[in-house]
Amino acid sequence: MSLSAPIQTRRPSSPGTPPFEAAFSAGMRDLDGTALRDMLRLAQVPGIVNFGGGLPAPELFPMQQIAQASTRALEKYGWRAVQYSTTEGFLPLREWLAEHTHLASPVTPDHIQIMTGGQQSLDLIAKILIDPGDTLLVETPTYMGAVQSFRPYRPNFAAVPTDEQGIDMDALAALLRDLAAQGRTPKFIYTIPNFQNPTGRTLSLERRQLLLDLTEQYGVLVVEDDPYGQLRFSGESLPSLAALMLERTGDDTDQSHVIYCSSFSKTLAPGLRDAWVQAAAPIIDRLVLAKQGADMCSPTLNQMIVTELLPLLPSQIARLRESYAGRAERMLRALGRELPSGVTYTVPQGGMFLWLTLPEAVDTAAMLPRAVENGVAYMIGACFHALGGGHHTMRLCYSNAGLEQIDQGVAALAQTIQTELER
Amino acid sequence: MSLSAPIQTRRPSSPGTPPFEAAFSAGMRDLDGTALRDMLRLAQVPGIVNFGGGLPAPELFPMQQIAQASTRALEKYGWRAVQYSTTEGFLPLREWLAEHTHLASPVTPDHIQIMTGGQQSLDLIAKILIDPGDTLLVETPTYMGAVQSFRPYRPNFAAVPTDEQGIDMDALAALLRDLAAQGRTPKFIYTIPNFQNPTGRTLSLERRQLLLDLTEQYGVLVVEDDPYGQLRFSGESLPSLAALMLERTGDDTDQSHVIYCSSFSKTLAPGLRDAWVQAAAPIIDRLVLAKQGADMCSPTLNQMIVTELLPLLPSQIARLRESYAGRAERMLRALGRELPSGVTYTVPQGGMFLWLTLPEAVDTAAMLPRAVENGVAYMIGACFHALGGGHHTMRLCYSNAGLEQIDQGVAALAQTIQTELER
Repeated sequence: MSLSAPIQTRRPSSPGTPPFEAAFSAGMRDLDGTALRDMLRLAQVPGIVNFGGGLPAPELFPMQQIAQASTRALEKYGWRAVQYSTTEGFLPLREWLAEHTHLASPVTPDHIQIMTGGQQSLDLIAKILIDPGDTLLVETPTYMGAVQSFRPYRPNFAAVPTDEQGIDMDALAALLRDLAAQGRTPKFIYTIPNFQNPTGRTLSLERRQLLLDLTEQYGVLVVEDDPYGQLRFSGESLPSLAALMLERTGDDTDQSHVIYCSSFSKTLAPGLRDAWVQAAAPIIDRLVLAKQGADMCSPTLNQMIVTELLPLLPSQIARLRESYAGRAERMLRALGRELPSGVTYTVPQGGMFLWLTLPEAVDTAAMLPRAVENGVAYMIGACFHALGGGHHTMRLCYSNAGLEQIDQGVAALAQTIQTELER
Repeated sequence: MSLSAPIQTRRPSSPGTPPFEAAFSAGMRDLDGTALRDMLRLAQVPGIVNFGGGLPAPELFPMQQIAQASTRALEKYGWRAVQYSTTEGFLPLREWLAEHTHLASPVTPDHIQIMTGGQQSLDLIAKILIDPGDTLLVETPTYMGAVQSFRPYRPNFAAVPTDEQGIDMDALAALLRDLAAQGRTPKFIYTIPNFQNPTGRTLSLERRQLLLDLTEQYGVLVVEDDPYGQLRFSGESLPSLAALMLERTGDDTDQSHVIYCSSFSKTLAPGLRDAWVQAAAPIIDRLVLAKQGADMCSPTLNQMIVTELLPLLPSQIARLRESYAGRAERMLRALGRELPSGVTYTVPQGGMFLWLTLPEAVDTAAMLPRAVENGVAYMIGACFHALGGGHHTMRLCYSNAGLEQIDQGVAALAQTIQTELER
């Protein structure tokens, strides 16, 4: 499976079809979603346990409160709730985010841009920063959606190895040195420090400081993607890269080279599409311009619904943590019990994912149809590798499965792997 | 005023600020929203009549029905209303749009992509089609938001003159011939055939056919932007370019080179951000991929709210037509009564805008602060010129002002112009 295989359209073009393929831009011509779409379709088989998607638990969405918040927002703001909002976003929400994004921080609403989902944050950051041929650093493995956002702007990806504590800092230092020797300064490094998608790993505090050292030294911006940070269920909370950087700049937000992204998709509900970026004002100013051209403004009503739900957030997050802790524990126990030897997995302290590494002989893409036949689906690890590799890895999502489903799914998975090893 | 003047950030950078400016991509470095933002701020003076913004009348938003639709959607669909939706969009909405976008057309849901506002349609169409240096054809004047969506992809704009009936077809033919002689085939032509933003003009039926002839002949895609088409209050409805093209292809949607865009922003409410693109399946397939990277999916709840409101649409559109007809008529009467000679204006058959051309000696950008002092604001015509020009023109929006405000605003405008001519 490759992210840059030629596109397959849904149906063969008729002989006289306008030559659309030739009209596509270079950045989009080579982008392929077919394999991923096929994989997602494969996992749609009713009755199977689907560890493949990256969905939050829908039974934990605060449905009653969302309905009340919608009614309240429409009553309180009237037509303003469905008129265009400012491109920057609804001010009361930006005020709250300025105060709460990093504890005790000097962030103001001018440092916050509301986005239509975290995916838009990644798209617009790429849009304002990347010229074709620019170098981007990404983790190995990394969130495939980020690669999909970045790729149309035609960067060259450089992949940084990771281990149990996140980015391997010696490898990063060596890579930056090598690139500098070639006269290349990466535009930014993209990282998910907390409960990474796909591995579930967390960047240690010491490495957070080292990452800031190295990126400051080489003049590389840091794009910190933190959709899962609130979902910690074990271990100690770590400050964000953005917060650590603000300590260094003496609370001068405009001196920070960290662009911080987060979202309400994993704490409230993803279908509202409410997310934000916090960064130095020159970055935010440029994101505002990019957003004017991208969708003018995020839906006004949705920003107001989230604002109405802010008082609910602490109890909602506590509820999610408790539930996800139970699911992760159940999955870890089942994996320990069922998996054949030679398969390793990560132990997340929060978030929604963990990561399996199988013996090199197993190709998880080839194995997927057999797993589905046995009643379980997962996400193929190769999807998360910007430069290829990872054929013997997979991501499991535990947030969207019940406890008994987890036992059942892991048993089916273990049996599939066992059979695969015996082939 | 220029769209490509150097950026002014909100506050001066401190000496040690990271060199953000140097990090910005070429497509975004030169984009400037300052002049427009300043103009919009200028128009925020309380108590003035603002013909500047392009806002629909908020007192006509069906607020009660929107609130009921939200409640109903949340009851009917439960957690599905706030979970991720498919990237393509909510199927019942796409089914309805396939049936209703062009009367008696063979469009299927596979030819419809839901977008987060019409602005996103323009952004993603540009993203899938434009390589740096590609030629794009735009009308003179054209919607400035479209230029803002297209510019980050670094096209070369070629501007097509227009007259009372829309695009000047002789000029277009000559331009296409000249470009072909240079070996340049424009990627697409961007046009708003109905009640154009900013002029209010409508492309005649004869010219619609000629536009299809010419673009077919030269292999140029057509991006038909039609947010106002439903808002006709006089004259006869004309078929869309997309519908005319389907007649030519014998109803084979995939043979059409017209990419049709519309939205619920002007018929229901813009803050819901619900819009769509209808095009050949290879185009839609590529837009789906672009949208995955841009915002994953449009907000689910909002798509369901609009779906619940579809039965209301005919009566809501009738209400808007009647109201906008009255406002346009009032403005036209006031302009005829008040304006000094030498000022001409367009007579729209629908939509929200009309267009004033003043004597060459008047610079409407320089005049704006004096107009605001006199109690009226407008949109500077130069904003709508992708290649400069139009300094003596302006756009007036009548949809967002009451009848007495219209009289009052036009009187203030006429007085300002009179004084300007006597300077």
